[in-house]
Parts: sequence; C-alpha cells; structure tokens
Amino acid sequence: MAERMVVVGGDAAGMAAASQARRERGPRELEIVAFERGHFTSYSACGIPYWVSGDVAERDALIARTPQEHRERAIDLRMRTEVVELDVPGRRVRSRDLSDGSESWTGYDKLVLATGARPVRPALPGIDAPGVHGVQTLDDGQDLLESLAGTEGGRAVVVGAGYIGVEMAEALLKRGYEVTVVHRGEQPMSTLDPDMGRLVHEAMDGMGITTVGGAAVTGIRTGADGRARAVLTEDAEYPADVVVLGIGVEPETTLAAAAGLPLGAHGGLLTDLALRVRGHADIWAGGDCVEVLDLVSGAQRHIALGTHANKHGQIIGANAGGGYATFPGVVGTAVSKVCELEIARTGLRERDARRAGLRYVTATIESTNSAGYYPGAAPMTVKMLAEHRTGRLLGVQIVGREGAAKRVDIAAVALTAGMTVERMTTLDLGYAPPFSPVWDPVLVAARKAVTAVRAAGV
Amino acid sequence: MAERMVVVGGDAAGMAAASQARRERGPRELEIVAFERGHFTSYSACGIPYWVSGDVAERDALIARTPQEHRERAIDLRMRTEVVELDVPGRRVRSRDLSDGSESWTGYDKLVLATGARPVRPALPGIDAPGVHGVQTLDDGQDLLESLAGTEGGRAVVVGAGYIGVEMAEALLKRGYEVTVVHRGEQPMSTLDPDMGRLVHEAMDGMGITTVGGAAVTGIRTGADGRARAVLTEDAEYPADVVVLGIGVEPETTLAAAAGLPLGAHGGLLTDLALRVRGHADIWAGGDCVEVLDLVSGAQRHIALGTHANKHGQIIGANAGGGYATFPGVVGTAVSKVCELEIARTGLRERDARRAGLRYVTATIESTNSAGYYPGAAPMTVKMLAEHRTGRLLGVQIVGREGAAKRVDIAAVALTAGMTVERMTTLDLGYAPPFSPVWDPVLVAARKAVTAVRAAGV
Repeated sequence: MAERMVVVGGDAAGMAAASQARRERGPRELEIVAFERGHFTSYSACGIPYWVSGDVAERDALIARTPQEHRERAIDLRMRTEVVELDVPGRRVRSRDLSDGSESWTGYDKLVLATGARPVRPALPGIDAPGVHGVQTLDDGQDLLESLAGTEGGRAVVVGAGYIGVEMAEALLKRGYEVTVVHRGEQPMSTLDPDMGRLVHEAMDGMGITTVGGAAVTGIRTGADGRARAVLTEDAEYPADVVVLGIGVEPETTLAAAAGLPLGAHGGLLTDLALRVRGHADIWAGGDCVEVLDLVSGAQRHIALGTHANKHGQIIGANAGGGYATFPGVVGTAVSKVCELEIARTGLRERDARRAGLRYVTATIESTNSAGYYPGAAPMTVKMLAEHRTGRLLGVQIVGREGAAKRVDIAAVALTAGMTVERMTTLDLGYAPPFSPVWDPVLVAARKAVTAVRAAGV
Repeated sequence: MAERMVVVGGDAAGMAAASQARRERGPRELEIVAFERGHFTSYSACGIPYWVSGDVAERDALIARTPQEHRERAIDLRMRTEVVELDVPGRRVRSRDLSDGSESWTGYDKLVLATGARPVRPALPGIDAPGVHGVQTLDDGQDLLESLAGTEGGRAVVVGAGYIGVEMAEALLKRGYEVTVVHRGEQPMSTLDPDMGRLVHEAMDGMGITTVGGAAVTGIRTGADGRARAVLTEDAEYPADVVVLGIGVEPETTLAAAAGLPLGAHGGLLTDLALRVRGHADIWAGGDCVEVLDLVSGAQRHIALGTHANKHGQIIGANAGGGYATFPGVVGTAVSKVCELEIARTGLRERDARRAGLRYVTATIESTNSAGYYPGAAPMTVKMLAEHRTGRLLGVQIVGREGAAKRVDIAAVALTAGMTVERMTTLDLGYAPPFSPVWDPVLVAARKAVTAVRAAGV
C-alpha cells in the first residue's frame, strides 16, 4: 500500500516539495495530499509590486502553477481547506473546508509543513480600515488595485522602508501617486548599514519619494466613511488616500507551536540539514515558516524569501520521496531596486558582525558599473566587511545603477567558500568595457579591505 | 643610494607595476625608469572597438594615465624609447631613442618585463596593404578611423570571430557598414564550445552580420591604387572597402628569448607565483607577455587581457617595492557582447577538459535574465561542465541578453573555490523579479549538472 505524504500550505515551499516528491516516486508508491487555505498555489508574492505598478499586466502571470496543473501531476490538492490541528503522536492532521466549515482528519506517513509567514500588523487604531493594505498575497494585491482605481494621482503613504516598502514606493510613484514612506529606522533599507541606507535615501529624494525616518506609526486616521485618511506618528500626520503596510513578516507557526514542535528565537521551526523538524524523523518544514542557519555568523535567522522557499521545497521533496539533499544554510543575500537604483547585500552588516562576536574592518569605495569611458557608465558604491586579522570576507553591500545588484553574487559565493578579501583581489572576474572597469568594483573594495585589515594590525 | 627599478613597456602591466612600487617606496629609496616605444601609456586597448563605433567619442578617453601624470609620480618615463637588448648577467638594458636613433645602457637592480603581445599577422599577399587594419594599439585605432572616414556605408570584412572580431563587427555595423566576418572555426567565438557558438552565429545573422565559418584567408586582393579591395579565401572572394584583422595575439617575448629567459609552450615568459621570472630573483614579468596558470586544468595558458595585466602590475609593484603579493592563477573568465547579445565563459570548454585528461558531463539549460513575467525578460542559455564522479564544476558558458555576461562571475568564484555543482544548487544568490527568476539560471544549470553527474554513475 502506498505511503501518504501530507503537505500543509500550497505555495512555493509546499508545492515544490510535492512536485519534487512526485518526481522521485510515482502515485502507486506515494500518495500526496496538499492543503491550501487560500485561492492560489505556487505564486510569486515578490512580483506583487510589479503587478501593482502595472509592469506586470495580469495577476495570473504571477502564478507559476495552478491547482489544476498540480492535480495533473497526481497531487491531491485541497484548495480553500485549512489545516487547523496537527496530531503528531497520532500522525494525522485535522482540516476545515472553508466553503462549508466541515472538518475531517487525514492520516500521514510523512508530513511537510509549509505554512509560510504572516505580515506583522501592529494593533493600532484604524489599521484594519478600508484603504489600508498589506501586499503579502494575491488577494491583498487585488484589494490594493481596487483601492487605487478610485484614488489615482492621490497621496500614498507606505509604512516601512524595507524591500517591500521601497518596491511599493516605486510602484505607487509609477501609478502617479505622491508617495511618502514612513519608517522607524535611521535610514531606509535597514538591511543595509545606515551609511549605505543614506545613499538609498538620497536617491529616493531625487525620485520625488519623501522618506520620513525615525517615525513610529501610532495609528491611522479615518474619515467619516471609515476609510483611511492619514497615517499618524507621534510627531505628525501624513495625509493618505491609500496606505500600504510593508512592515515585514513573521513565521506562521501557530499550528506547529500548538503541536509542541520546536521553534527558535525568531518563532520559526527548527530543522536539521535535511530540513526535518528537529526530533521528528517524518516531519519536514521549509519556506517562510522555518529558521535557517546563517553560514557567516553561525546564528539562526528568519528570512522570508521565495528563492529559499523553492530550494527548501525541492530538498524536502527529494528527501521525503526517498532521495537525498541538504540545505547548508544561507549567507543573507538580498537584492532590490527603487526605480533605477539597485540595492544589494550579502553576509553581515556591522551590527550583525558585532552581535556575532566578530571584530571587523570596513572598506567603502566608489566605482562605476562599466569602464568609466563607456557610454552610460554610472556610479556604484561597494562596502565590504572583513574579519580582523584573518581577513575573511564577512559581508558586502552595494548601491548603484544597472549591474550593481547582481554583482553581490560574487560576494555570496566568496562568503560560501570562506574566502579572504586578499584572495578576492585576484578573482578572475569577467572584464570588458561595457560590463566593468578593468578592476571590477568588488575587486576595488577587496583591495581596500586588504589595506584596512593590514592597517588594523594583529 | 637608491635602488633602480627598470620597467620595459609602458602599458597596463608595466605602469601599474611602476605606480604600485612607487606607493610602496619613495623616490629616495627606489628610482623607477620606464621605457615605452609607443606614443601612449596606460591605455585601454579593450576600448578600441567602442571608440571605432563612436560610442566613445575621443581617443584620450581610453587613456587611464598620461606620461605626464606618471612623471608627476616620480617615475622617469622615457617615451618613444625602445629597449632592444637585455643584458641579464650585466643587469642592464640597452635602449634606443626612436626619435634620433641614439642608444644607451641603463643598469637595474630590479627589472620588470611588460612587453605585451603582438598581433598575429600571417604572411599573406596584400596583408600590409592600405585598408587592412589591426586594432591592438591606439595608433591602429586612429588609422582605422581615418580609413573609415572615406568609406562610410561601404563593405567591411572582419577576419577572425573571437572577442575582437565580434566587437569590431558590432562597431562597423554601427558605423553603417555591411559587415562580413570570415573565420576559420566551425562557429564564431571559438572560446565557446560550438553548440554555444552556434547561438552567437544565429544572433549575428539576426543583426544582419554575415558570418562565414571554416574559411582560411589566403590573401587580400588590392586595387590599382594598392588599396585592399577584397578578402580572399580558398573558395571565395569577399569584397571589402575596409578589412579588420582580429586574429588574436601572441606574447611579445623577442627580447626575453634573446636573453635566454624561460619561455613556455605558448611563447610566454614563465614566472613563479610572485611573478618573478623563473630562476631570476630580480626580474619580474606580467601582462600579455607571460603565461599564467589555469587553476582548473593545471596547465599554463596565454591570455591577453587588460584585467590580468593590471593585477599583474599591481602584484609586481608590491613585490619589487619590498611588499608581498601573489597571483594564484586564472580560471579563464571572459565576457563580451555583439550589440545586445552578451557572451561569457569561464573554466574549461569540452576540448579543454579532454586535453586536461578530465572526464566530464555537460548540462545546458534555457532560462531568462529576470522573472519570466517581468517586462523585458529575455532568454539566456547556460552550459555547465562538471567532473565525472566528483561533480566538481569545470566550466560555464553563457549566451543571452542583458544580465547574461556578468552572471559568469558566480561560476568564476565557484571554480576558484573548487565547488561542486551540487553545492552550487543551494548558493544564496540575489533574487528579485527584475534581476532573476526564483531559480537563477546558473542554479538551474547546476541542478541539471547534478542530475547528469548522477546519471553517469560511478
């Protein structure tokens, strides 16, 4: 008789796990049942800002694989069905059909938890008013687009200046809004050090996006019709026809917590390298609901990112299907853009290095994305952190124009390999005038970091 | 009394060495004398195609540092002065002032050979006729531009389809010429495997550039005025108002050979890791006149590329100035473009792997440069070679549109680190819809290569 694999959550991690397990084992060997409480499967939440901006014309373009396509691969996919309880000793899950409220138990031999993340939504007055929008799900995106349809050319306030915040600022600017970004940090993009975030701030100013830093939102003022009219902080009021919340997410592990599964300091599930939930040989977890090992600091982190979720799913599917794969961890790479400005980071910021107990030096350089004489050569700033004494690369942050963001991949691989900045200075990187100065900006930063390591002595 | 360092050759490697040595030691400790037989120092030969195309308006934009700027850094630079003999036992060089033919001897404590490369120029009938142009030096570029001034909109034939050949094809196309590229190989860009070269061929067809492969040039037909009129092959004649030779270069080591310094199989000087000429503690060599270690195959190679020359110079200058630096070797990275088509390679091609005695598998995938739904997403083909059994990455070739070329840097770093393709599948590369699909094309290729390694068994 076939074993049964139950998947909780039908987005990137869950459906990638289901698909890969199906590749490993056919329907006669492995039955796969997947539960998804929403209306969609396998979609790109990262693409929502580009749908809102109009760059992507249709919602369905963001859907990588529909429920029907999954079913054609012999996956028993139950849409609009929420798993409400895990019975770990009994090896079964209780699910509720959201259309009629009916409930039932489904037994499993193998369980995959891919419950994702939920947006942080502080309990502030007015936060649930019409006109206040999250952008985590396709339904959120649809709601926001409907809200925009009535307020074109008005004022938009984005709360939060992380990836989602700045991408939504771009989207709303493109839609003709007067955009204000209200955020708590010293500078936008707190995933960068403040000196690099300042460059983002200045560029956003240049684009006509107002950023207000150091501002804690205290509530949303609503009008007589109950609709959001302004974002309130301790010091000021920012009029808004539409409000977008981009304050980040936290692991959705309510079910796992109730079942007594192990959670980390960030609230995410803890797994081993094969992505099995610690202490549970037949339960795997991946995607936005788990914590991952940061290979540079050695600490556990929570990073909600589609590229990790897809890798996790593929690895879980291989293992649950009887194959073998592991997820060694992350180095913390992230790229983004606001209009023409590209933003990238990998490894540790200064505060991360300090928290990890590392002593470090920094080097910041300015260069260009192509040979200086090549038409359209544009400035690029690279900041590099290296460990004191050993010179081991610890992190890189890049802010610039075309070609800036993906250059961070050079550092991501070097971090993975534990390379020193001295070794990096002789890396054989691609050079031709349209693509790089004769010393790639990353190499220039590495040279300066070598000097900084030496200057710091032993 | 100050030591004296003599530098032979005033381009990238030589002047980078002089500049770095000057940073290490002041004029009272180290006298630096540099000889350059040409009119220019420290220029970007790689930029010549973009000057010819008109993308770069002026010759001087390609000059990184003028003779005067070097002299201001206390470098005794002797322009238009050719070193014609090395007296190694006597520790001196004989130079000739090309303006008046006068000669003199200059003693050295430390010698830097940076004599560069010379274009391959087969002894064919008509090869020296007016209208036949190399593109190695700024003088060559100036001559070509003057030749073009009289033949705008005519027919251009480029001999050779390597980097210089395809870049010159683009330049001449932009200048309004009807361009034919005649080359010996099966496909253009023989630095790629033929299956990837075919993609370049097809793209060039689409741009209106005619490529003629498998064609050995037998001569240049000249008109009554002695000017080139056509390129002749065994089978055909290709009418030409202008002919550009892009057949490659070989190390210029005539002086070194006459002095009995050690040369490798490719005719380049052989050095140790500190770039000292083997067996000579006080002679360094770098740039286009040396052979370099290929870290993937373990073989010596000759690669004429400004980025290596600059690194060599910096390392030589550090060592000759009393500091310490080494050049570990190359992995063979090169990037280029023809109009919108980007071309990149690193590591070994199939024939290189065979020659190195390696058994390998290949994986070729098609993906896109950004998320498939993102506007302007364009195709990208990635070919990956991995070692049989171990799965160690051996090489990557990429042909695509914007964002294709510099992705090869991911593989360049992975090669340097000796990474396996399996480890590469979980690399934490930058992901956001404008920059990459959720699985970066390099990761997709790595996944397919893992499957190929497994399928090949043990």
